[in-house]
Amino acid sequence: MRLDRMTWPAVEERLARGRRGVILPLGSLEQHGAAGMLGTDTICAEAVALRAAEIAGGVALPALAYGPAQFNLGFAGTVSLRPSTLSALLCDVLASLGRTGFSRVLLLTGHGGNVAPALAAVQEVLSEVSLGRLVFPRPLSVKLRAWWEGPRLGALRRDFYGDREGFHGTPSEIAIALHVTGAAPAAWPAYRALPPDPLVDLGGDRHEDAARHRARYPEGVVGADPALATAEQGAALLQAAAEDVAELFAAFEAAPEPHS
Amino acid sequence: MRLDRMTWPAVEERLARGRRGVILPLGSLEQHGAAGMLGTDTICAEAVALRAAEIAGGVALPALAYGPAQFNLGFAGTVSLRPSTLSALLCDVLASLGRTGFSRVLLLTGHGGNVAPALAAVQEVLSEVSLGRLVFPRPLSVKLRAWWEGPRLGALRRDFYGDREGFHGTPSEIAIALHVTGAAPAAWPAYRALPPDPLVDLGGDRHEDAARHRARYPEGVVGADPALATAEQGAALLQAAAEDVAELFAAFEAAPEPHS
Amino acid sequence: MRLDRMTWPAVEERLARGRRGVILPLGSLEQHGAAGMLGTDTICAEAVALRAAEIAGGVALPALAYGPAQFNLGFAGTVSLRPSTLSALLCDVLASLGRTGFSRVLLLTGHGGNVAPALAAVQEVLSEVSLGRLVFPRPLSVKLRAWWEGPRLGALRRDFYGDREGFHGTPSEIAIALHVTGAAPAAWPAYRALPPDPLVDLGGDRHEDAARHRARYPEGVVGADPALATAEQGAALLQAAAEDVAELFAAFEAAPEPHS
Amino acid sequence: MRLDRMTWPAVEERLARGRRGVILPLGSLEQHGAAGMLGTDTICAEAVALRAAEIAGGVALPALAYGPAQFNLGFAGTVSLRPSTLSALLCDVLASLGRTGFSRVLLLTGHGGNVAPALAAVQEVLSEVSLGRLVFPRPLSVKLRAWWEGPRLGALRRDFYGDREGFHGTPSEIAIALHVTGAAPAAWPAYRALPPDPLVDLGGDRHEDAARHRARYPEGVVGADPALATAEQGAALLQAAAEDVAELFAAFEAAPEPHS
Amino acid sequence: MRLDRMTWPAVEERLARGRRGVILPLGSLEQHGAAGMLGTDTICAEAVALRAAEIAGGVALPALAYGPAQFNLGFAGTVSLRPSTLSALLCDVLASLGRTGFSRVLLLTGHGGNVAPALAAVQEVLSEVSLGRLVFPRPLSVKLRAWWEGPRLGALRRDFYGDREGFHGTPSEIAIALHVTGAAPAAWPAYRALPPDPLVDLGGDRHEDAARHRARYPEGVVGADPALATAEQGAALLQAAAEDVAELFAAFEAAPEPHS
Amino acid sequence: MRLDRMTWPAVEERLARGRRGVILPLGSLEQHGAAGMLGTDTICAEAVALRAAEIAGGVALPALAYGPAQFNLGFAGTVSLRPSTLSALLCDVLASLGRTGFSRVLLLTGHGGNVAPALAAVQEVLSEVSLGRLVFPRPLSVKLRAWWEGPRLGALRRDFYGDREGFHGTPSEIAIALHVTGAAPAAWPAYRALPPDPLVDLGGDRHEDAARHRARYPEGVVGADPALATAEQGAALLQAAAEDVAELFAAFEAAPEPHS
Repeated sequence: MRLDRMTWPAVEERLARGRRGVILPLGSLEQHGAAGMLGTDTICAEAVALRAAEIAGGVALPALAYGPAQFNLGFAGTVSLRPSTLSALLCDVLASLGRTGFSRVLLLTGHGGNVAPALAAVQEVLSEVSLGRLVFPRPLSVKLRAWWEGPRLGALRRDFYGDREGFHGTPSEIAIALHVTGAAPAAWPAYRALPPDPLVDLGGDRHEDAARHRARYPEGVVGADPALATAEQGAALLQAAAEDVAELFAAFEAAPEPHS
Repeated sequence: MRLDRMTWPAVEERLARGRRGVILPLGSLEQHGAAGMLGTDTICAEAVALRAAEIAGGVALPALAYGPAQFNLGFAGTVSLRPSTLSALLCDVLASLGRTGFSRVLLLTGHGGNVAPALAAVQEVLSEVSLGRLVFPRPLSVKLRAWWEGPRLGALRRDFYGDREGFHGTPSEIAIALHVTGAAPAAWPAYRALPPDPLVDLGGDRHEDAARHRARYPEGVVGADPALATAEQGAALLQAAAEDVAELFAAFEAAPEPHS
Repeated sequence: MRLDRMTWPAVEERLARGRRGVILPLGSLEQHGAAGMLGTDTICAEAVALRAAEIAGGVALPALAYGPAQFNLGFAGTVSLRPSTLSALLCDVLASLGRTGFSRVLLLTGHGGNVAPALAAVQEVLSEVSLGRLVFPRPLSVKLRAWWEGPRLGALRRDFYGDREGFHGTPSEIAIALHVTGAAPAAWPAYRALPPDPLVDLGGDRHEDAARHRARYPEGVVGADPALATAEQGAALLQAAAEDVAELFAAFEAAPEPHS
Repeated sequence: MRLDRMTWPAVEERLARGRRGVILPLGSLEQHGAAGMLGTDTICAEAVALRAAEIAGGVALPALAYGPAQFNLGFAGTVSLRPSTLSALLCDVLASLGRTGFSRVLLLTGHGGNVAPALAAVQEVLSEVSLGRLVFPRPLSVKLRAWWEGPRLGALRRDFYGDREGFHGTPSEIAIALHVTGAAPAAWPAYRALPPDPLVDLGGDRHEDAARHRARYPEGVVGADPALATAEQGAALLQAAAEDVAELFAAFEAAPEPHS
Repeated sequence: MRLDRMTWPAVEERLARGRRGVILPLGSLEQHGAAGMLGTDTICAEAVALRAAEIAGGVALPALAYGPAQFNLGFAGTVSLRPSTLSALLCDVLASLGRTGFSRVLLLTGHGGNVAPALAAVQEVLSEVSLGRLVFPRPLSVKLRAWWEGPRLGALRRDFYGDREGFHGTPSEIAIALHVTGAAPAAWPAYRALPPDPLVDLGGDRHEDAARHRARYPEGVVGADPALATAEQGAALLQAAAEDVAELFAAFEAAPEPHS
Repeated sequence: MRLDRMTWPAVEERLARGRRGVILPLGSLEQHGAAGMLGTDTICAEAVALRAAEIAGGVALPALAYGPAQFNLGFAGTVSLRPSTLSALLCDVLASLGRTGFSRVLLLTGHGGNVAPALAAVQEVLSEVSLGRLVFPRPLSVKLRAWWEGPRLGALRRDFYGDREGFHGTPSEIAIALHVTGAAPAAWPAYRALPPDPLVDLGGDRHEDAARHRARYPEGVVGADPALATAEQGAALLQAAAEDVAELFAAFEAAPEPHS
């Protein structure tokens, strides 16, 4: 279910029945290689969240389509939030959800750059609770996952792409975006393996400012081979990711509060 | 065109051709009366922005689905940003757009509560420019409009609803949401005219905290009669609003910079 | 009455009698054309607030003499606050007033650039109330008006200046400043009508950074003909504005709280 | 000279002549004992600044009438800024002045609670300079003084009041306020000497929250005997303080920049 | 080498020789179980950083002894920073180091709660670089590691403690603290294995507010058996961790900048 | 006693016995002249705090090793916090201490640049208390002292160094650092008396940005003759300062709360 399509009495009634969980998809608007859509991260996170909500009978919030992506500002069309801005936004969202009676929030990200500010925001809100400055009707628990962290999806993308999955502009995200948008596959520059470099960490597309990042990855893909992606794979990947997330969310929403 | 479906080379090429305008729809997730969808404001702003972009050959950014709506926090499902959070977010978005070469940004809001923080954000970013802390390749101009401010839309909604348009949960926004989502019309509580009150200003759905706001408007509609709304009206209203916005945007994007 | 000339026991006693309203004048320190005083906005807002307080038996706070005016930083002597700074300041003032027992605050601005940050501040404080982080002895209501919004003043300035009132360095504000300060009228550059321009909105003196703003309005006046101003007109305008504001304030302060 | 009564060309011309100094009076709106005016601090700081500017041929900015005074929030009519808010405001004012070409700013406070946030603001602005984020046409120097720190004033208030000067609601500030406003002297509660207490530091009216502060000083005066104050003394004190400040300011404004 | 024991000419000379790396240890002051020292995280991070700096001929900064630990505020003596505060502090430290000429900064944490705010801070600073608001003499690269992430340490702690290492109050950190401080080992409550719970993530000591956290872990240890710790193990663990960190740091500091 | 070496049950027990005081040493990492250690301020503040805690049977927190020192950023190795950052950090520390039951906090600084932000932080936290946003189990009192403000230390440093003590890189701080670290004394540039300058205030090492500060004090010492320092003097100075601080702290911790 999409929260934005519900009415407030429907939400009130659902909370009264003890269904207190919600999924918030977090995306980004940033370059995804020469033939990838700028909105890839949001498209994927939103699609997985909606499908997972369907499967689990859960509720999904509207996606946040912007995230911290300063390293990609050298590519036209990228929009980047400061991490502190995303944290402030998530603090407000969590405080609103907590006040209204939601108590299990799953942040589902499609962009690695959201992880640190999102986790920081959770602790910021809980700091307010621990100091007595925020009081919620129910204790608030928050989890964060990327849509690609579950076992079904992991197996599938290894099958499909092996070590050409890479770190940015990955074939799995490109495939899901093709499936979701119905866009036609486009031609991609040749695959370029990541050379080892002590300056770069694994998953290492976020360590530099925009100028150096573009110099290092001139057309934007990081260690991935998006040319492998097809919409058919995208359909399967979306389903797998959604099942992983639905399973996690269902257990999270249903888990009893141990100290009542 | 939707920016999130474009690639970075396509954006780069468009900017190189001198097409430097973009529309950013701003919504809200908040109660819209007992039978109105929580996402009504975002649904409307996004639909108008996309249609206007089509008409004008312009580019629309992904909608921001959350805004300041503290007065509606007494209704389940409402999510509210602090105004300072929305301002911070828009500062980052404007700085990113300015850095990338966009120079004409139209903020198109579907929620009155976005207006003040958005205008504040514009001045905040321009303060940075005026103090020399931000330098853009082109001078940045920003306009803000609500989707209902144009003449075509104004005439139509007067025709359709007269003085029952009201201020929140208005039949025009409900109608557009019905049209866009294909949802079935629902039953509404009876129309309740706004009594005059010196505590309340015209358009006055934002003057109070959440507890008082719910006490004053127990099911959430403010001076409107959303039961009048139909999807057919929604189609016409959407088209009218989009034509108004497209006209404004086209002139704004094409206007020469006077001091170069 | 001026709050800064009262003692705390006098304020306490007044609140105990149920007089819980206060007027806060908001100005700006910024260029007002080649012959206009930098403090014009503050001079006008403060004079209207004091006179209105007299008429209504109300209380006026000391004026805030600084506001956001980045667009005028290209003219010597202009001081500009970031909008976020003005919002923070007004949040503190409103929280202090609310805590002390004031419950009806009229923000009276003499500068358009104060409007957005002031309205944002009201929602910021009410957000704190709605989340339970601020508790006041009485519910707090805040209104914002510019001193020129009332009917008496509107009629008078149309009579005096017609379409030469303009948007900045207006003859009405110059006239009031002449009357209040007793300064001698000065020579002004010739009237320059505003050319239509899709980059500029009506009331459009705030859309640009400082460099472009000075380039567009080289001596600072925006669509106004301040040479028309006389101190005698100023006296009449001040009285008219004060009567408008006093009427609004009296009704606002006396309005019963509907939900007690 | 008052900056708010000057025009921008007059300021520009003055700066061009190398007169780059300005005085900014900082006040507070807070209780000053049962018979003291809430605006005493602002009244004094502004009066001294204006008189000093006259004597030194200098320029005074409009006073800031609000400051941090949380300890006095238990007394009706007190308005308190968070220290961080005052710092933000002064950062903006200093950045504006520096950008416009002022290079010697004297902050003249009438309230001890302004000192720490003002000094913090100076370092905050200079941090921006040192990191290269703010560039001014001339190096900016800022001094902070309370109006009572000079030798002439010090001698006079020792003569007039000896050890009954105290720390808040002092006879010297009350006397200046009587002189400036023409108010009639009022009856005061009996003098109460400050008992020694290891919890309280010398000048110690700022160490506690509002509830404890009011419990300790039930009618607001701290170790002072304001009943001694007369308007005649006020005239003499004002003149002495202004001479002290004028001397300091003149030397400060005229001092050559050593490293050019 | 410890930076705090160096002189500025020594630092200048070292930078001139191209040695541009530095290690910053990040700790926390928070409960570490009934017999664990509150400063355990800082003691460990600092000891590993100093030893690693010795091994690699590198430079270590003074430790930051405070971090975000709101979940432990229910235990006396815990001090917690908001995540936004730690981020702000690290932004300032990184900006200072970057300005001075350091270009390789290794953040070495002893507390999981520092990771998200630290990574957010890195992106915040790099955002400033990417927007042109900060300019450093050399491109800045930042890495973050916990001291327990290297292979030597990992092997050793598996050998010593197997699955009784746990997540908070771990025997390995207790052992290092015993070794570093020379404190005598104390008696510990009996080992309590972590029950599986869908509310708790792996490494899951940070998901709740302080009240719930103390209810769940009544004496503070999370899935660990610190009674196993000895000072002798601590010496070996410290050496292993330092060798891991030294190796990483040496490669990081020496890696050539690829785009010059 | 060092809090970082205590366990939480030990702290809990101590608070239960009514020992509610704590000392927090504040330092800085900044140049201290050509032969002075960058960490001198922290070394001194921490050593005095620990010794004073021993003497008074009090508790010392870990030192904060970073402070605002923008004026010294022109010297390699200096790290500077923005004043607002230090204030935020101290707000968090004070809120944590207040929540846990500490009620007497002595901030002991070794760096003048910490004073303003620290005093601002105290008022910021107390503002939260006065507005009801923070509630502590006991009223919180905070004092701030520099370690050199007591009478024993004052007498001794006059004896040792007379007017060559100066303001930065003073022989007394250098001497204590020599004593504490066991470092060998180094050669210093010749003593340079401070010329009088109306731009510089007494204690005046903080009035300028980094570029001007280095131009004025080319090797970093301000009016001091650190060549006079010996480790033996350092031992005596440390003891004298610690006795001064212990006396102050003991009285502060033991003082009864007057209004209970």
